[in-house]
Amino acid sequence: MPMIQKPTLLLDKIKCRKNISAMVSKMIKNNVDFRPHFKTHQSLEIGRWFMESGIRKITVSSIEMAEYFSPEWNDITVAFPVNIREIETINKLAVTINLNLLVESSEAINFLKENLKSKAGFFIKIDVGNNRSGIHPSNTGLIDAILSISGFSDRLNFKGFLGHAGHTYKCKTRDEVTGIHNMSREVMAGLKNRYIQKYPDLKISLGDTPGCCIACDFTGIDELRPGNFVFYDLMQCRIGSCMVEQIAVALACPVVAIHKDRGEIVVYGGSVHFSTESLENEKEGTVYGRVAEIKENGWGQIIQGMYLKSLTQEHGIVSVPHSEILKYSIGDYLIILPVHSCITANSMKNYLTFDSEKISRM
Amino acid sequence: MPMIQKPTLLLDKIKCRKNISAMVSKMIKNNVDFRPHFKTHQSLEIGRWFMESGIRKITVSSIEMAEYFSPEWNDITVAFPVNIREIETINKLAVTINLNLLVESSEAINFLKENLKSKAGFFIKIDVGNNRSGIHPSNTGLIDAILSISGFSDRLNFKGFLGHAGHTYKCKTRDEVTGIHNMSREVMAGLKNRYIQKYPDLKISLGDTPGCCIACDFTGIDELRPGNFVFYDLMQCRIGSCMVEQIAVALACPVVAIHKDRGEIVVYGGSVHFSTESLENEKEGTVYGRVAEIKENGWGQIIQGMYLKSLTQEHGIVSVPHSEILKYSIGDYLIILPVHSCITANSMKNYLTFDSEKISRM
Repeated sequence: MPMIQKPTLLLDKIKCRKNISAMVSKMIKNNVDFRPHFKTHQSLEIGRWFMESGIRKITVSSIEMAEYFSPEWNDITVAFPVNIREIETINKLAVTINLNLLVESSEAINFLKENLKSKAGFFIKIDVGNNRSGIHPSNTGLIDAILSISGFSDRLNFKGFLGHAGHTYKCKTRDEVTGIHNMSREVMAGLKNRYIQKYPDLKISLGDTPGCCIACDFTGIDELRPGNFVFYDLMQCRIGSCMVEQIAVALACPVVAIHKDRGEIVVYGGSVHFSTESLENEKEGTVYGRVAEIKENGWGQIIQGMYLKSLTQEHGIVSVPHSEILKYSIGDYLIILPVHSCITANSMKNYLTFDSEKISRM
Repeated sequence: MPMIQKPTLLLDKIKCRKNISAMVSKMIKNNVDFRPHFKTHQSLEIGRWFMESGIRKITVSSIEMAEYFSPEWNDITVAFPVNIREIETINKLAVTINLNLLVESSEAINFLKENLKSKAGFFIKIDVGNNRSGIHPSNTGLIDAILSISGFSDRLNFKGFLGHAGHTYKCKTRDEVTGIHNMSREVMAGLKNRYIQKYPDLKISLGDTPGCCIACDFTGIDELRPGNFVFYDLMQCRIGSCMVEQIAVALACPVVAIHKDRGEIVVYGGSVHFSTESLENEKEGTVYGRVAEIKENGWGQIIQGMYLKSLTQEHGIVSVPHSEILKYSIGDYLIILPVHSCITANSMKNYLTFDSEKISRM
């Protein structure tokens, strides 16, 4: 194991590459285009592992991220309602790569029609039930209006309908996830039927990690965009998307204080490292992370009853069973699996592999 | 106002400098040494505003932060239980600055006795009721043991007792805060009485922003270390530490979608910008931030009923009264006051003043 001095984001390269190839295989088997979301890892180097698996198209969540990946990726969808304040960068990017934007209003498409200087693709964002962003699928009036405006521009290329069933993150069973996934497919199938004659190349793009991991039927979907699966996390385990053994990142946190009377260890590792996303359960209350056994090369099983129970800026309080606490001393470190790896990875500057290789991110 | 392209952390320099000078005045008036906590702003440049107000000693929350500030600050307390895994950096710092560490166990002081290569001060961390870290004040056996070990080293200089009444953050009234503050003072007075004869130079160091803002009686306290007051935030308003008008930072977030039917605006600004700290109230539920009026130079009052109701990685959903929503268009931006400015500032790379001056942080 590498030398740990302060909170360090460990990356299990073998698990991570396995997660990538498993998803690639599933997509090939189901005959669906795979456009992985890179907002989870935000790293050119990890991106290259996808490239080695044959991936050529990616998804990102901001123009800034598209810019970061653009030297190595030529086909990028920014799966976020287009932020017209960034039109300058959009115009720069549209010259050099195949850029796809997301549109959900007449105002946005109108702005692009007037201000876009090169060709770009756009998807119409459909709200498949997540209620975050997107057009309600019944609002074909607005869809027609957007398509009518884009029709006046030879720069705007309508690519299809894009949805994100983010509400699967609230599911507690695999059946619930499958239900939402199938509902999203139906919604999209309806739109495809309606518009396919006029736009024979239109694609249906979906993709949240729970749906992509759990569902078996991808009929009618042309493209999937999961992201989190590259690392997984405790939230995905609870939903049923993965096994604990597949989680590929963890934070190594130095032990700075031990309170035997309260059964608590204080680690250097707080909300600025983990973020404050949490899971709830009746027995333990709020859980911000779980401690795993340290192995010679990585980590093993979760230690029952050892979990991150609270966080402040740099402090993490770990609940420790009285039977375990005597095993620890000041200066040890704990390996803690995160609740939401996208946000934890976003909080840290880089990844460290077990061979002490530093992998940078944007 | 500066040009906003993506989520931008605006800093109202005038309010910020007023917050600094108000706290400096209060400390002088109460004859207490002021050692402000710099973990909130983490910026050399903002640090210089404190220096201009006569401040010469600071508090930070990590060795890394001490390193960052060490070129300009010569007297730094790291108010975090010493992380012995960073002994190399500690030894480097101890040569160049007056470094104070925090100790709460025999193991830690023993390690320092054996491994510290230059002189350093240390405070004994006392748990004044926050139950996060520190020695219970009644555990004088442990305090005696630590002092006995440090007595064998001519490098370790006992500076006194340090407490952090972080439980004031959970208070809902100013009286509750004052109660905790006075309780902390009493606890510390007991320790001072017990140890002052043997250690006539020992200092009592306290300091959480609510206590420092609300309390009037600082008898027995030698040093205070508040940090958050430099910016304040919605949490401090709720506790009663400040007025909304004193909040000195806000996130400017582009409007990317408007859902009139649901009374919601989607902004570019999510949990990676704000963090997910929140406040609860019966009427609105969970609140992650509040929208303020945009003024020619800065922001004005909070717009009633307009608040950040949910966050995902880059999306923020703002609840907007139906009477207000027609005023907004795609491409506008909202100014959103954060719930916890320390964590929001930590999420962003730099500050932007109203004169478009970029202020960097570590």
